[in-house]
Amino acid sequence: MKITLAVVGKISGGYLKQGIDDYTNRLSHYLPFNIQYIADAKCTKNLSEAQQKKAEGKNILAAIDKSDYVVLLDEHGKEYTSMDFAKYIDRKMATVPRRLVFVVGGPYGFDSDVYDRANEKISLSKMTFSHEMIRLIFTEQLYRAMTIINGEPYHHE
Amino acid sequence: MKITLAVVGKISGGYLKQGIDDYTNRLSHYLPFNIQYIADAKCTKNLSEAQQKKAEGKNILAAIDKSDYVVLLDEHGKEYTSMDFAKYIDRKMATVPRRLVFVVGGPYGFDSDVYDRANEKISLSKMTFSHEMIRLIFTEQLYRAMTIINGEPYHHE
Repeated sequence: MKITLAVVGKISGGYLKQGIDDYTNRLSHYLPFNIQYIADAKCTKNLSEAQQKKAEGKNILAAIDKSDYVVLLDEHGKEYTSMDFAKYIDRKMATVPRRLVFVVGGPYGFDSDVYDRANEKISLSKMTFSHEMIRLIFTEQLYRAMTIINGEPYHHE
Repeated sequence: MKITLAVVGKISGGYLKQGIDDYTNRLSHYLPFNIQYIADAKCTKNLSEAQQKKAEGKNILAAIDKSDYVVLLDEHGKEYTSMDFAKYIDRKMATVPRRLVFVVGGPYGFDSDVYDRANEKISLSKMTFSHEMIRLIFTEQLYRAMTIINGEPYHHE
């Protein structure tokens, strides 16, 4: 199984990129992992929030393959502890045939078409993080999950 | 009111420090904020987890003043949305006379003496983050709270 983190918006830059790159490299020791950048809506000044979500939703759906198992990172999603997230990833490795895709939406969340396509929603926190920060937090949690699955000394309970 | 983030362990370095410094600087426009470093337990190879927590607990309590309002960042704490955390900070600004101290513990959590002294516990997520990452996430959420309190366009609901 491959894992992709699909993110709407600009390619990461600056200090957060260093952290995202660090965990992405560490993850490559465990499984194929990549970050897929999805174009955000253009000329957003002329768009309502709903129009922006709709435009981004089209781009998200275009980036997803029929065989992908799609999980939205969404504030209304299920919250996991790091231990339970590791168990979740471990189960997915046994059941998802090709690609497990986690999707981070744009600033206003997901369009209904994206919710309809998604297989699941999970939430990293009740709090709202910046989109760059979510990328860092997610890659760190996925790395933590892989160390837990492999019984390696990174995570303390 | 002043706010302090008291953290057990090493001074932040590398890419996360850039983010922590950035939000710390931005926070200084709203209220006095600082990060206070608390020494971690030394020679931990010879200490049990309980002994390490006890030693760190002593250092935490030594860094806290009688008049401080102490909030532990703890996995068993109450979770807030970013909006509710902003309301929480706003209320504290009206009721805490001197210093509001948020404390991040060492790798094994807090000693019972620290729980006894604390006024409250809050949790940023059900997930476990690295101690450096918690510092970044917390300073970003506190900055986000200040922009929400001041009606500034940083946070989207």
